[in-house]
This record gives sequence, C-alpha cells and structure tokens, in this order.
Amino acid sequence: MKLTKRVNEMQFSPIRRFNPMGKKAEAEGKKVYHLNIGQPDVETPECFMEAIRNYDSKVIAYAESQGIEPLRSAIVDYMKMYGMDYENEDIIVTMGGSEALTMTFLTILNPGEEVLVPEPFYTNYHTFAKCASGEVAPITTKVEDGYHYADRELIESSITDKTRAIVCLNPGNPTGNVLTKDEMKLICEIAKEHDLWILSDEVYREFAYDGREVTSFGMMKEYEDRIIIIDSVSKRFSACGARVGCAISKNKEFMQGMLKIAQGRLCIPTIDQVGATELFKLPKEYYAEVKAEYVGRRDAAYEELMKIPGVVCQKPGGAFYMTAKLPVDNVEDFLVYLLTEFEDKGETVMFAPAEGFYATPGLGKDEMRIAYVLNQTDMKRAVELIRLGLEAYLK
Amino acid sequence: MKLTKRVNEMQFSPIRRFNPMGKKAEAEGKKVYHLNIGQPDVETPECFMEAIRNYDSKVIAYAESQGIEPLRSAIVDYMKMYGMDYENEDIIVTMGGSEALTMTFLTILNPGEEVLVPEPFYTNYHTFAKCASGEVAPITTKVEDGYHYADRELIESSITDKTRAIVCLNPGNPTGNVLTKDEMKLICEIAKEHDLWILSDEVYREFAYDGREVTSFGMMKEYEDRIIIIDSVSKRFSACGARVGCAISKNKEFMQGMLKIAQGRLCIPTIDQVGATELFKLPKEYYAEVKAEYVGRRDAAYEELMKIPGVVCQKPGGAFYMTAKLPVDNVEDFLVYLLTEFEDKGETVMFAPAEGFYATPGLGKDEMRIAYVLNQTDMKRAVELIRLGLEAYLK
Repeated sequence: MKLTKRVNEMQFSPIRRFNPMGKKAEAEGKKVYHLNIGQPDVETPECFMEAIRNYDSKVIAYAESQGIEPLRSAIVDYMKMYGMDYENEDIIVTMGGSEALTMTFLTILNPGEEVLVPEPFYTNYHTFAKCASGEVAPITTKVEDGYHYADRELIESSITDKTRAIVCLNPGNPTGNVLTKDEMKLICEIAKEHDLWILSDEVYREFAYDGREVTSFGMMKEYEDRIIIIDSVSKRFSACGARVGCAISKNKEFMQGMLKIAQGRLCIPTIDQVGATELFKLPKEYYAEVKAEYVGRRDAAYEELMKIPGVVCQKPGGAFYMTAKLPVDNVEDFLVYLLTEFEDKGETVMFAPAEGFYATPGLGKDEMRIAYVLNQTDMKRAVELIRLGLEAYLK
Repeated sequence: MKLTKRVNEMQFSPIRRFNPMGKKAEAEGKKVYHLNIGQPDVETPECFMEAIRNYDSKVIAYAESQGIEPLRSAIVDYMKMYGMDYENEDIIVTMGGSEALTMTFLTILNPGEEVLVPEPFYTNYHTFAKCASGEVAPITTKVEDGYHYADRELIESSITDKTRAIVCLNPGNPTGNVLTKDEMKLICEIAKEHDLWILSDEVYREFAYDGREVTSFGMMKEYEDRIIIIDSVSKRFSACGARVGCAISKNKEFMQGMLKIAQGRLCIPTIDQVGATELFKLPKEYYAEVKAEYVGRRDAAYEELMKIPGVVCQKPGGAFYMTAKLPVDNVEDFLVYLLTEFEDKGETVMFAPAEGFYATPGLGKDEMRIAYVLNQTDMKRAVELIRLGLEAYLK
C-alpha cells in the first residue's frame, strides 16, 4: 500500500503551505495582511449571487458535461468583444482554470512528456503536470530582465523530443509579464516549426496596464488548430470561490479528448454556472473599473516596495502580482519570522516565497511573490510591514 | 500534436452517449422517459438552496482545499449516526464522488497498475482509472447469480502483482448488490493478505432495502488503515448538480497525498459547500422517507419488467438501478430503435446499454441498465414503453 510516484513527487502548495502559521498568528490576536494568495478583496458583482438566488428549480440536477449552453454562449459573446470568433462547441466548462489545466495535461501529456513553462510560474502547474505523470520543463527568466521569455533562442534551447507544448501565462503569474502581438506571433511560429501545442492561460486577460493592449492567443487565427486557451471567472470577476473556468480550442480532436474526461466527472456544479453566466454578460465598463482599481493598488504597492533598501523588482505590466528579490538568503525563514516573531502595532504580513514558482532547484530562494489584492491603504500598510519586518530581521 | 494514450483509450460515457438522439426525439415532439441516468426527480431538500440564498459574503472567496470546516464537521456527525468514528482531518471534500475517485486513483495507481472492480460496474470507473494511466481489472459477475462477488476464490483468482486495490460499490451501481457485514469482513481479510487498498464507493449508502442493514467499510475498524470511502450528496439528497462529495480515510499518508492534489486545484465551489452542510444535518427520518419512496419505485418498475417475456433480472437489494437481460442480441440497436422509430401515444423511453458497464469485451451486449429515478406512475409507464417497444421491435 504505497502511494504513487507522481504523488510522492508533488509538493504541497507553497502558496498555502504557510497557512497554518498564519492562522496561528491570527489566533494569537495579530492582524495578518494576506499578500500570499490571489484572493482579491474586490466585491464579486452582485449579479452572480442574484442569479443564483433566483434559481428556482426544485431539483438541483446534473448539468451538461461540457457546461450549460447559456454560459457557453455568454463566453462566446465575451470573446467576440476582443474580435475572437469561438463557438459554443469550442468550449468545455471546468471547475476553475485548475481543472481545465489538469484535463488538458491528461489529454496532451503521456507519462514522462514535458511542457515548457517560463519560470517563475504559477506553482500549481507542477501538480497539474504531475497528475498526468508529466514534467514541467522551465524556460528560466530573471527579474532583472523583467522576466522576458519571448525569445527564439531561449525557447528553442529548451525544446527536446519530449516537449509537447509551450505554456504561456499571459498576463503572467507571478511575473506580471504581458505578451505583445509580435511576441505571440514568434511563439506561434516556434510552436508550428516544432509541432507543439500552445497552452495559453489567460485568466488575467484584462489586467494589462499602462496602455498595453489585451492580447490573447485566440487572436492568432492562422495557428488556431494548436492553440488551447484556459480561462476562469476567478480573477476577472473576483469570484475565486465560484470555481468556474473553461478550456477553449478550435482543435476538434483535442476537444473530443477533453469531453471524454469531462463526461467521466459528469459536470461542474449547476448553480455556479448559472451565476457565472451573468458575470460574462457584464458591460465593458466593468473591466475598465477593475483595471483602474488594480493599477492604483499596483502603484501603491510598488512605491512602498521601492522604499526597501536592496529590493529588486520591475514594475509589472499585468495580472496582480509582483515578484521581488529581497536582501535575505532565504525568504522562507524571513516569512516564518514575520509570522511567529514580528509584529508592529499588533500587525504582520504574509507573502508567498517564490522558490516554489521555479522548477530549477535553487532558484527563487531570495524572492517573494506578493498579490496586490488589497485596497490601496491596506496594500501600503502591508508592504510597509514587510519593510519594517525586514529592518528588524536584519538588525 | 497527438492526444495521449490514456485519452485515446477512454470511451465516451455510454450513459451520456445517446443523449443527442434523445434530445432529437424530444425536439421532434416526443416525450422521452429518462431511465438512462441516475438523476432522480425527487426534490432536493429546500435547506440546500435556503442556506445558499442566505449566504451574504460580498466576495465569493476560495474555500479551504480540504473543504470548509462546517461541512466536514457535518459529515463527521452524519457518519457517527452509523457508529463510525471519523474526524474532520479524515475528510477531503471533492467535486462529487467523481473527483474523489479520480484523485484516489492518481494517489494509489502508477501507470499500468490495476484496481479490481466487480463487473458490471459504474462505467466512469474506466475514465477515472485511465486518468491515472491505470486499468480496471474486472471480477466478472452474472445477473443469474444476483451479481454476487464476495467470494474468496472469485476475488483471489483476479489478483495479480499489478493489483493495488479492491473497489466495492456498496450498494452497487448498476447491480443493486448490497454487501453484508460478513462479506465485507471477507473482503477486508483478502485485502490484508494481499496488501491491497479497499476503495468503497458508498454514495448509495442508505439505499438498502427489504430489511438489509446499512453497511459501510467504515465499520471495519480493524482494517481502517487500508480503507478509503467515497461519498457524495448526489443520490442521497437528490442533489446531483451540487457536485459535493468527499474521500474519507484514516490513513494519514494517503490523506497527505490527496491533499497535495486538492491544494493544486485550490478548492471546490464555496456556496455548494455551504448548502451541502445543511443537507448532512437532515434528521434520520429523511433517509427513511427517501428509502420508502425508492422501494416503491423499484417494486413498480420490477413488476412491469417481469411482464416482458424473456427478461432476466433479479430484484435488486439497494441503490436505484436494475440491470436486466433483454431478449435481443444488441440492446444498443434496440435503444436506437426506441429513440428514432418507436413511439406509443407520442412517448418513448431511454435506458443505458449495459455493455459499457463491463470491462470484459463482449459482455453485457444484451443487457440494459435502468435507473428507477422517476415517480411510480412514470416508472410504470416507462417500463411499459420498453415492453411495447420490444414487442414492436421483435415483430
């Protein structure tokens, strides 16, 4: 009665690993600012719960395996807003982007096969790939270069005969990197030349700042047969707990494979789909408001961060994370210090150590990821606490 | 850009495969009685939606990866009702029993390893095992023997060096087989001697009829370290669309492995957990009422079924399915006939061909599974339509 190799090789979520320590600090009466998890404090649009409250079926029945039609239609209409021409049959609704990613890896990765992912990357990719007994092969990028990875030589040097896909998180978590259309075209060309899938995780699609355009691989029509888009309501609509996401692709063979897995697990919850349908119908102004809110938060956090001597960080162009190098050898030790020893006026702060966001052993030990998911006042205070904590820690 | 071996080997759900044909018949104005899917018409207890309507958080936030504490506590209390002594930490909440099963197979099955499952079995086990690149190895049982499988020789003859677990669906889907405590003890002993996990899918726990006791492998305390229980609100509370299930085990190493996967996908939807918490608090009388309802449906369906010349079926002792042999070579052809050619007063009927419930090629071609999920009047009429359809088909 042993556990499997794949599970033994998985890690506990480095984002959630320090939660017990955070909870203990809170139980002891400390206020803890949570910059460790991408859980915004932005209110979920009321239409989500309103639609659910009005749901009057007497039997909470199974939904279609590929998602309810009104939701798929609403997603199609939403994609049209950016000029992308998908149809209901190109969409499978999933339990968040997470299930879409796991299902995708199960569909395209045989045991031992690899996906290329620019590192640092959203840490749970490890787990999704391991579920398929696959591997994440990193394209290493650096904070000093703004985590730039759309470079032919850099990408091609990582491709092997085991590579099956290039994964792009666009905008990037934890890097905030936003691809331009030219960069996307380059990645498409490389994928075509090496016969790879492009797996584009676009759950932060609208979070592109400072005049950057919203870009999606769905706009690369010429390459549509190899493109798989992952999406979710979690971040865009501050509805992380709804767990409604989807996989989108014009590749019919791929969608048939995905549907087999989707049918196996029957469907995702019915009422969350009813609520999510209304989210996708929100007017374009909603996205502008949310974007303005996050730009303010980013700027507030970045300004405070720049007050920390020795910090290395480039202002991110998208998503709602910042990864920064701190003047410590091991940010995990520093985080433990913040949660167990430090306080300022009864308050402390939590971030995510960045080591778990790298696949290359040893990288990221001196980096942290913060999520700028709190209002500006709280963000400033939270980053101030990192600074004060660091001063005390280094004394 | 090929799909994976595992996905190529998966089948489309034989339960859902004929849905397009059923929808077409409905679009043409026919009334179709659905005996093909375990979707009861019993009303979901009002407390589910009531708790959700009263949920007043402004942000629909992530839940804990292992499930919200009130839900886990409610499940613990519910298990105590049957004398089982589980704690919150022994429970991981999942998206239905389906996700619990997939996660379990990922945790215990390396590629190529096998689980023993008495056949016919719930067809999606194929997909769950394939997700782990594992295999279902069948223990073949027969309608003529009432699908009895708790037999030392029968089970041991199927164990190989690739076997990792014995899966028991208790009460069984599609067989209705209910294990006695002595039978469970025998299975535990065999599992111990061969160092196997016992994976007990008990989503129909209360659906044990004709004086049969509710039995659970959770009652086999001596063997608790190798026992994994799969549960769900879907059937018990007629809440299939809530997609709330769980895996329960006292084996801490196993639970740690499961937690890694659970953390990767973050959590299941928050509000469905809020609703499901109330379901598990329903008084014991609720189960008695539901059981009485299903006994009535079973008896009505069985009585009608026995009017069909040449049918072979033993009255099932549990769950809400009956598998029956029909006097045709291929029930799929007959089903297509029912959906495309037959009608009686504008009505027809759908069932699930049983072939997909077998792992052994060639078995089950002349068997159908019906779910007795409709009220007695509808059940009688639906089975009558099978009889009338068969008369016309064989003419």
